[in-house]
Parts: sequence; C-alpha cells; structure tokens
Amino acid sequence: MIYLNSDYTAGAHHRVLEALLRTNMEHTVGYGNDPYTAEAKELIRKAIGLADAEVMFLVGGTQTNATAIDGILARHEGVLAADSGHIAVHESGAIEASGHKVLTLPSYDGKVCAEDVDGFVAEFYKDETYQHMVAPGMLYISQPTEYGTIYTLSELEALSEVCHRHNIPLYIDGARMAYGLKAEGADFTLRDIARLADVFYIGGTKCGTLFGEALVVTNRALLKNLFPLVKQHGALLAKGRLLGIQFGELFRDGLYEDIGREAVQLAIRLREAFRSAGYTPAIESPTNQQFFRLPNEFIDRLRESVSFDYWGPRGESESVVRFVTSWATTNKDIDELVAQI
Amino acid sequence: MIYLNSDYTAGAHHRVLEALLRTNMEHTVGYGNDPYTAEAKELIRKAIGLADAEVMFLVGGTQTNATAIDGILARHEGVLAADSGHIAVHESGAIEASGHKVLTLPSYDGKVCAEDVDGFVAEFYKDETYQHMVAPGMLYISQPTEYGTIYTLSELEALSEVCHRHNIPLYIDGARMAYGLKAEGADFTLRDIARLADVFYIGGTKCGTLFGEALVVTNRALLKNLFPLVKQHGALLAKGRLLGIQFGELFRDGLYEDIGREAVQLAIRLREAFRSAGYTPAIESPTNQQFFRLPNEFIDRLRESVSFDYWGPRGESESVVRFVTSWATTNKDIDELVAQI
Amino acid sequence: MIYLNSDYTAGAHHRVLEALLRTNMEHTVGYGNDPYTAEAKELIRKAIGLADAEVMFLVGGTQTNATAIDGILARHEGVLAADSGHIAVHESGAIEASGHKVLTLPSYDGKVCAEDVDGFVAEFYKDETYQHMVAPGMLYISQPTEYGTIYTLSELEALSEVCHRHNIPLYIDGARMAYGLKAEGADFTLRDIARLADVFYIGGTKCGTLFGEALVVTNRALLKNLFPLVKQHGALLAKGRLLGIQFGELFRDGLYEDIGREAVQLAIRLREAFRSAGYTPAIESPTNQQFFRLPNEFIDRLRESVSFDYWGPRGESESVVRFVTSWATTNKDIDELVAQI
Amino acid sequence: MIYLNSDYTAGAHHRVLEALLRTNMEHTVGYGNDPYTAEAKELIRKAIGLADAEVMFLVGGTQTNATAIDGILARHEGVLAADSGHIAVHESGAIEASGHKVLTLPSYDGKVCAEDVDGFVAEFYKDETYQHMVAPGMLYISQPTEYGTIYTLSELEALSEVCHRHNIPLYIDGARMAYGLKAEGADFTLRDIARLADVFYIGGTKCGTLFGEALVVTNRALLKNLFPLVKQHGALLAKGRLLGIQFGELFRDGLYEDIGREAVQLAIRLREAFRSAGYTPAIESPTNQQFFRLPNEFIDRLRESVSFDYWGPRGESESVVRFVTSWATTNKDIDELVAQI
Repeated sequence: MIYLNSDYTAGAHHRVLEALLRTNMEHTVGYGNDPYTAEAKELIRKAIGLADAEVMFLVGGTQTNATAIDGILARHEGVLAADSGHIAVHESGAIEASGHKVLTLPSYDGKVCAEDVDGFVAEFYKDETYQHMVAPGMLYISQPTEYGTIYTLSELEALSEVCHRHNIPLYIDGARMAYGLKAEGADFTLRDIARLADVFYIGGTKCGTLFGEALVVTNRALLKNLFPLVKQHGALLAKGRLLGIQFGELFRDGLYEDIGREAVQLAIRLREAFRSAGYTPAIESPTNQQFFRLPNEFIDRLRESVSFDYWGPRGESESVVRFVTSWATTNKDIDELVAQI
Repeated sequence: MIYLNSDYTAGAHHRVLEALLRTNMEHTVGYGNDPYTAEAKELIRKAIGLADAEVMFLVGGTQTNATAIDGILARHEGVLAADSGHIAVHESGAIEASGHKVLTLPSYDGKVCAEDVDGFVAEFYKDETYQHMVAPGMLYISQPTEYGTIYTLSELEALSEVCHRHNIPLYIDGARMAYGLKAEGADFTLRDIARLADVFYIGGTKCGTLFGEALVVTNRALLKNLFPLVKQHGALLAKGRLLGIQFGELFRDGLYEDIGREAVQLAIRLREAFRSAGYTPAIESPTNQQFFRLPNEFIDRLRESVSFDYWGPRGESESVVRFVTSWATTNKDIDELVAQI
Repeated sequence: MIYLNSDYTAGAHHRVLEALLRTNMEHTVGYGNDPYTAEAKELIRKAIGLADAEVMFLVGGTQTNATAIDGILARHEGVLAADSGHIAVHESGAIEASGHKVLTLPSYDGKVCAEDVDGFVAEFYKDETYQHMVAPGMLYISQPTEYGTIYTLSELEALSEVCHRHNIPLYIDGARMAYGLKAEGADFTLRDIARLADVFYIGGTKCGTLFGEALVVTNRALLKNLFPLVKQHGALLAKGRLLGIQFGELFRDGLYEDIGREAVQLAIRLREAFRSAGYTPAIESPTNQQFFRLPNEFIDRLRESVSFDYWGPRGESESVVRFVTSWATTNKDIDELVAQI
Repeated sequence: MIYLNSDYTAGAHHRVLEALLRTNMEHTVGYGNDPYTAEAKELIRKAIGLADAEVMFLVGGTQTNATAIDGILARHEGVLAADSGHIAVHESGAIEASGHKVLTLPSYDGKVCAEDVDGFVAEFYKDETYQHMVAPGMLYISQPTEYGTIYTLSELEALSEVCHRHNIPLYIDGARMAYGLKAEGADFTLRDIARLADVFYIGGTKCGTLFGEALVVTNRALLKNLFPLVKQHGALLAKGRLLGIQFGELFRDGLYEDIGREAVQLAIRLREAFRSAGYTPAIESPTNQQFFRLPNEFIDRLRESVSFDYWGPRGESESVVRFVTSWATTNKDIDELVAQI
C-alpha cells in the first residue's frame, strides 16, 4: 500500500530520530532551558536572518495558533482569516475557547487578498456601530494554504503592507512551510517570511519531526511573557529539549529545505502523471498537496493500492481527492502510483 | 555529574525508544485512530480491570488536567485541591484560563483529608450566600503528591466516599503513578485507583516515555465528547500513534511497574544513606522524590558532583533540597552519591 | 423633533415608572428574592401557560444571550444563528468571550429556515473530520428579527421540529417580543413561543421598562444552576425587585400586548404613508421597525425634523434608513411625519 | 419593621428618582452617548480633580470588577486581593470566568497591608519556578472594605507606592465609597483616591441610585477600548442615560457626600447605643456597616422588630450580626432600634 493521505502518517526523518537516540540518556534541565534548544533557536535565528527574534518551540499546530493568537489580541479583538483557514474550520473552536472570534474573509483557493483585508478594516471603522462589533485585531494566513497553494512574494508584501498600514499584525501559520519554501515557482524565502510577518511558525510535525512547531516572534512587543502563556495553554513540553534536538537537526545543514524540495518534486511528478492521463487538477497546487477530480470508478480502483483522502463528490460520477507527499514518500511510491495511472 | 533534579531530565526508557524506532517508517492514520493506540488502550483497560473505561492519550500533564477539569465542571463550579496541588500552583493559571476557580484545602505533606473535603462542602451549602460563591464541583488529588507522599488505600477510600456522598467526582493526577504504585508500603493497586476515581491519568512523561499521559474516564457520563474537547485544548497529537506505541510498551508486560519499583528502590537507598549519616528527611516520602534538610556547606559540596533541586532556606545555615530518581537513574549514580554522604 | 431612531430612546412606560415610584421606599431583600419578583414570575408563567417554567430577570439583552448560551452549550459546541443575528454581529464577541463559536446560517430578511438548519447539522456529521470542528449545539433565532420580520407559527414549528429531531435546543431572543406578538398578521402567541422554544427571553428594555429582560427556561434540564451563572456573568441586579416590579406591571393586565399593539399600528401607518407616496419598503416588515430606500435629498430634508437611523447607501442617490416606533411614540409624532411625506 | 440588612434594600434617593421622572419622556441616543451622561462624567472629573480621566458607567459591581480586571490584566496575570475581598469570595467566580486567578493575601479586618503586597511580589520573582505560576498583575482593594473598615490616607499611599514600585496597577472597588468618604475619622478625599489609584469605581447602587457604578480610569493606557470591552461583558446599558441622570444628581451639588455623611452618623449612633449597653463591636468600623457579637437570645428578640444580617455563631450562646445603614435609613429607625437596646 502506498500512503499519500497526509504528511503526518509516518514517524520522523531518520536523522531526526537518530539525534533523539544519540542524546536519549543525557540529562538536561527541562522546559526548553537546555543547550539543544538554545542551539536550535540560534540556528533558526540565522536561517531567518534576525538575530533578536524570539523563538519558542511548541508541540502542535492548533496549540501554537491558539497560544499566539490569544497572546497577540486584546480582549475585544478578533482574528481575520480565510473562511477555509485552519483556525476557522478544523481546530474545534480553540480560538473561540480562548475568547476570540474568527472574522472570516473570502478565500481564493485557500488564500485571502490584500484588497479584501483593506476593505474589511476600512468598512469596519466606517460602520457607526463598530464599537459593538469585534474589531479586526490581526490577520492569520497559512503559507502554504490548506489547499496547497502559496502566496507569491508580492502577495505577501501586499498583505504585510495593508496590515501594517492598518496597524494589525500579520501572523503566518507555516505548518507546511518546508513544502512552501521549495514549491514550484516559489519566489520567497524564510527571510522574507520573517521580514513581512510579525509572528509566524515553522512547522515540524508535517516536515520531518515526530512533532513540534517553532514559533517565531519578530515583533517582540506583540507577544511578551511567552513562557507563562505557553504553559497556561498546556503547550509547554516538560522534556523541552526533544523539540530543540529535532529542530536543531532540521536547521543544522539545510535538512528542512531538502525535505521540502524532495517531497515537492514527488508531488509534481504525481501531478504531471495525472495530467498526462487527461485529468485536470481541482486546484493548481505547486506544493506537496495535490487535488484531483477523478471518476469514482477510477478512485475505487486506486484505493486498492493507494491510501489517499476523499474531499467530496462533484456531480454523480466524479469526486475530488487529495494526495499528499512528505519526507516519508519515496520515489518507489510515486513510480508505483504512476504505473497505476 | 549525577542528575537527580527531577524525573524528566533524560529521554525515554530504551524499550520505549526502540518501539518508536521499530515503527518509525510505518504509515498509519493520525489523531490516535491507529492500531497501536487501540492496543495501548486495551492494555490499560486490562491493567485497571475495567473493560469499558474510556482511555485517551494526551501529551502533557498541565494540558491533561486543564482539559479534564474543564470538561467535568459546570460553568459555575470550581475544583477542590490541596493548596500545594500542581493545578493550584504550577500551571500558570491553566485552570482559571478555562474559567474555573481552584478552591484550596489545607495540605498535609501534599495530601488533603476526607474530613476537610466533607467540611468544605457542608459549610459551603450552609452559607446563606452560597449561590454567590464558586461551588465545589470536583476534587483533585495527586497520587503520589508533589511532596512524594502517597495516600493509603483507606485514605483513598475515604476521599472517594466523601466525594460520592456529596455527588462530586474524584479526579486523580497520576503524573508519577508508577512511583506511587511501587512506593514503600503502598497498599493500593491501579485497579483500586480505577475503582475509586471517576477520572484519573497515568503519567508517562515522568515514568519512562518521551512524553504522554493516559487519561482514563471510568465514569463516562462525566466526560463526553472527549475528542473535540482535547482538540480544542490544543492537546491532540497529530501523530497520535506515538502515544499509543509508548504506552503499549509500558503496559505490555509490566514495564510500568518495573520502572516504578526500580526507581523507588534507588530512592530508598538514597534516603537511608542520608539517614544513616544523621540527616532527617524534611518529609517522610516512600516514593522517588526525597526531601532533606541539609547544612548549606554540605549542599555546596554535593553540588560539585550532583545535580538536585533547591527548595528554600530553613534558618541561616540549612536548606531543604530535593533528590528525584527515575527510570533513568542507575545503581552507579546512587553508589556515587552514597559515597559522597 | 420626532424620535424614531430606535425603541430605547426614552425612559419607561408611565405605569412602569409609577410602580417604581410607589414602591421606592419599601425595603425588600435583594437579588430577586423579593415578593415583587415572585409575583412577576408567576404572571409570566400564567401568560405562557407553563406553571413550572423557570423565569429569571436579567438587565440587558447581550448579557441575557451570553449567559443563557454559555449555560446551555457544552465546551465543544457552538450556536447556530443567522449571519445577521444580534449575537453574530452586534455583541462585541460576547459569545466568543465565553468560549463559543457562532456558526452562521444564511439569513433571509433576518430569518433562518428549517431546511438550512437541517442541512447544516446533517452535513456536519457526514464530514469525516467533524470531530475537529465546532459542533452545532443549539439554534438561536430572534423573534422579531433584527430586520423587523417575524417567523410565522408554521416556520417556528418547523424550526422547533428540526432542532428537536437533531437534539439541539431552540433559543429565541425576544428583545422586541411585544412588537412581534402584535405584528401585522402575527399568527403565534406567547404560549406558542413557550411551547416551541426550550429557552427564550421576553424583552423589557425595548418594550416599556427602563431595562430588563425575562429569561424563560421551559426545558429546565438545559439550564440548571441559573442563579450562580447569572451572577458569574455579572448579570445579577442587586436590587432585583426593580425587575420584578417592572415586569409585574407589564404582565398584570395585558400592558405588554397593549404596548406592542399600539407601536405596531403607528409603524403600519408610517409604512403606508411612505408607500402611498411611492416609496417601497426595503424589507417587508409587519412590526415596529420599518426600512425604506429613500432618495438622499429626501433623507436630508426629513432629518431636519425627524431623527432616524441610517443603514447605508444604495447606489449614488439613494440610501436605506430605519424608522422605529415604540411605546413612547405618539399619534402626533406619526401625524407630523406623515405630513412631511 | 426596621430594615438594616444591607444598603440595597430600598429603591433610590428621592432626588435621583425625581430626575428619572423629570427626564422620562425625553428622547436621547443610547449607550451613554447622551448629554446627561456627558454631564455626569464631567461632574465626576471635577469631583476627582482630573480633567482627562476616563469615566464609564456600568450597571453593577461584579460586572464592573470583572470588566476592569479582565481589561487590565495580561493573559498570564492574576489579581492580588484580600482573601475576604468581594472578587475572591462573592462573585461566583466572575474573575476566573474571564480567565484570571485571584491571588489572595491575608486580610486584617478586610484590609491588606503594603508589606504583604511587597512580600508577595518579591517572593514571587525570587522563586525559580515563577514562570510556571500566575504573575501578580494588579492589586484589588475595596474602600471601605467588606467589613466596614477603611484604609487611612497613609495606608493608601503605602499601597499605591508599593504597587507602582513593582509596576502593578492599583484598583479600588468603591461600592460603598460614599460611606467611606464620610467615615468617622476619614482622612482621605475622592481626589486622593483618584491620585493614588490607577482605576477605581464610585458605587451608586449602595449609595443612592437604583443601580449603577462609575468606573474611573486615571491611567488611561491601562484600559483602552473600554466601550467594546464593556459591551462584551454584557455591561453596557442600552438606555445609558439612566446612569448619567442618576450620577449627575449625585454629583451636582454634593448629594453623594451628604448621603454618606448621614448614613454614617446613623451607624455611629447605633454603634454607640450598643456599646453603651455593654456590647463590643466584633470589628471596629467607622462606616455604615456595624458588626456586633450579641447573645443569641437578644438576637432573637431584636429580630421581631429589626431586620439584619446573621454572620455566624461565636461559641454556643453568641453570634455575630451585621447592621447596615444607608441613604434610606431614617432617624426614626435608629431611635426605635436604640429604644430596643
């Protein structure tokens, strides 16, 4: 069976696991105050080109989003997000549980546009009753998006500009950042992300670690007292070094980008194989997630040897399905899939 | 250097890590819906002797406490706990962050007593203004406690009885359960815990895993819809199987109790060595945590070769310090320490 | 100047104020445990025909909605509402502040339809990832709606049926209930409301009192411990009798319905005057709120002698405005307005 | 029957009620944007001698405390308060419901002392684990206290000094401020309160109005965006002018202080009558609340003609009871009570 359901179906990249093995019987202090975590933070600061950014490692994406957003927003503020955004749909109300409304914007294949952000904020303050409404206090975007698409550098610059013009911070959920950085045609770097966002996170769980996300705060005035906030959100790992060790491995010599590059290449091969066979992507994705509208019969046949996600029917005889590659996908997996197509 | 600061200074028990290694490149579905997690749940149900208990794996203790307590309590209720309880002191207000007050009871070396629980609840409902006050909605205890002490079976039975007489659930934080089950003189079993508590958790982080706690709900009416609640609290691990694999190893053939037994034996050796040298324990502890009041000069000398926790001054020339053994402590560590004493 | 901005621009109906005057120097116990409050609860129970409904008086609408919804929902649940609903738009995130998402449905002139509720719930549980999403835990509707429209009896019955089929309670915000009960063509009674809703409130602030809303719980299992919940939400009035005295007056001999009838008659006169002059209502409203699309020049002229609400531009030369009648509107007010049209 | 249970058993001072009557049929805009509210704010700014303080009127004490404290604190912070403080005991967990812990200090007849505040904060930051604990983010005191006592000017200055030295704001709950300002031996003024506190409120409900509290923010950077915060807390009155009209009356020509003076004089007469009869106050109170330890037989006899509060037994044959005067207490009431003693 070939597994292409998602990017969290296997364990960790072998180098990450080896690092955990190698250090297993060492003793260090807890809660991220160990040397491995310090080194990993330093490696990330170098990778983003900001020597004084704050870096904090958390365990998972939902808790990272909830912690950061809760810390950034004032009590009367909400967070702008695409109506398809992870925080708007798939986090069981974690944002609302910490007291904040998700203010949704239209999504275009998972992306929001600067014009809509500008319009929302401008209209909001024009409304005479705005003091009775939830104020837009920040913008959340995911890069890549939940639909595998990416923002171009100029789109990111436009979003950053409109946010800062309206004095609302830009937060980027980078759960799949590795696959975005090495996406087909990607014209942005991690340094651009760090320059344009106020706060963002670099995903580990889907990009080579067992678990873990690296929250980066470039605008430190926005998120003070991060340590107790993380603890309060139940997001502080006792053996914090496990996060430092894993991220240290990812950022020591380019492994993070290597993982992104290889998984994207496999995804593109998969996409082109479908395309050659006459199928059109449901969404034009340059990253490790590929969506296709396929005949139901074909889907049933594929299921015998491939595991993938079902996204819903399109008409009577077709459906949209999702294939996801990752650091754990092999050339052989794709060879076998291509043979099926 | 001998490390006796705490029970989370090293990685994982070698068998646990080997299990993670062995399964690393397998693909499974996420969020705990995999066969490893199913097996681990079944092993725990067998260990506690309750075939229909609900078992859910979470990542850490604070998030487990916050999720369970938030799920159990009604909005107007608070949780009774020792004033030294972990939720009352060291969770950065995670309980309050989900809207609930921690109602403190006096602690006796970390323990609460049934009389005080009874008295609190009885006095509460006698007060004419009780409707303006936070109602006691459940009792939280830790077994073993934060001070290394344990409740005897009869104490647990008395607490369970008083809780159920007043119709408030009993919740047990078992972060260090392994060391309690095998404590010197322990007269209770995991089956007793499961019989007497409504909800409890079996700690992994401090007892052999990299991370992870097994939340057990024996009174299932109290905590319905646990999955979305866990997700909402940011406590759902994407690669949920990592928890199942680790707990499967702990509960497959008695490893959990072996870990407890060995660490407690080392702690007792350490205690007796100090006692033989004329030092009296600051608290009489039968578990893996040992507290001693030592001369400051002796403390300074010990620090050169041993790492341990400082708990505070006692008079001008003495202080209380804590030594903690774990699955990662060796006979050699204790031999060397004893030699120093 | 004629004031038709809203139904809370004046004080209280003279009989309500006289009752407050008459009782001013009496002493009673606080927090609603006085005989006036007891009498008012009894009058409301008679008016709705349910001898064992729970009635609780709160001060304002937003706090009543937030308290009731927070008390009804489980932690992982949200509240379904029209996207134009008061809780979705104009309560500054009070629902989210208590931890719950507002799940929006399309609104048709302020109303939701049973089909959409049915569809939402059915689709929700069909989604394989529903456990990661906020579950629909109750339905909120306003009767009359924020746009002055009303649900017919059969629409209410359909909503009640679909809610109860899916086991989610129906909550009705009756901030302007008096004007709904006596709306043009209204075919439902307060008894119908009580029979079909699980929880609802009868508005006082906009219908004759200085302030106050009567929360009615017909399905008492849904909202236990209402007193401490109300206190916790800061919604418990110290001099609770002020609410009892006011609602006693409204419900002693039909004053509530008289207020509704008279204000609606004035609103219909106003509407027909506009219609005769060739203007079409922006929304067909049978209640005390009337919306018209008028030429901007006409609006400017009207403003010289009439105070009303501006709702937004329609094209370059027209806008939608709102006129609201209430117990404080007089025949003379409407005569003068009609003369202007 | 003479009513001395509490200071909220009657309606409003006749001048306040007359003002409501006089303005009843006027129309104004809602939510406190009317001229009466503007005037009342201006009168309060004059009374406190701070032309640019922000003043906001809310309905009740619990909601005022919850709104202000929630607005001032960061997410990881709690509020220091006497263990007898209203927020710690009698607000049904409203502070915790908004996510914050109440950190209790010992109370001395209802008061905290500057040394304890200093000690708490200093010890807190000395603790190596302080980042895992709830940080003291502000100090709450009540003036007068729940036990009728008052802070002297020098005590207030010491508290203000220690707070500002540690960079935590001082908040004063002035639910009974009128009776404090005119307390026997009071050496502070409203200007002192405004000078020493960062945020405080001037109570109306217990001091002459039907309801209402005036929240004053002298350190405006601490509580920005007060309007939506108040709305979100369900504390915004639709007919906001009712608060402005009432407070305007209290502050136009010294009525607030007159009310305080008269009620305190009556309380002192009552106290001295008991003292002359050989009874000692349970607490030495210079304000409108008087606590006495009386023989149970005497209590039973008094109950036949006087209504007062029972505070609890002291030994087998005595109990502590509370007598409270207010603007609604008359000389005749006290004459009759004195005759009984």
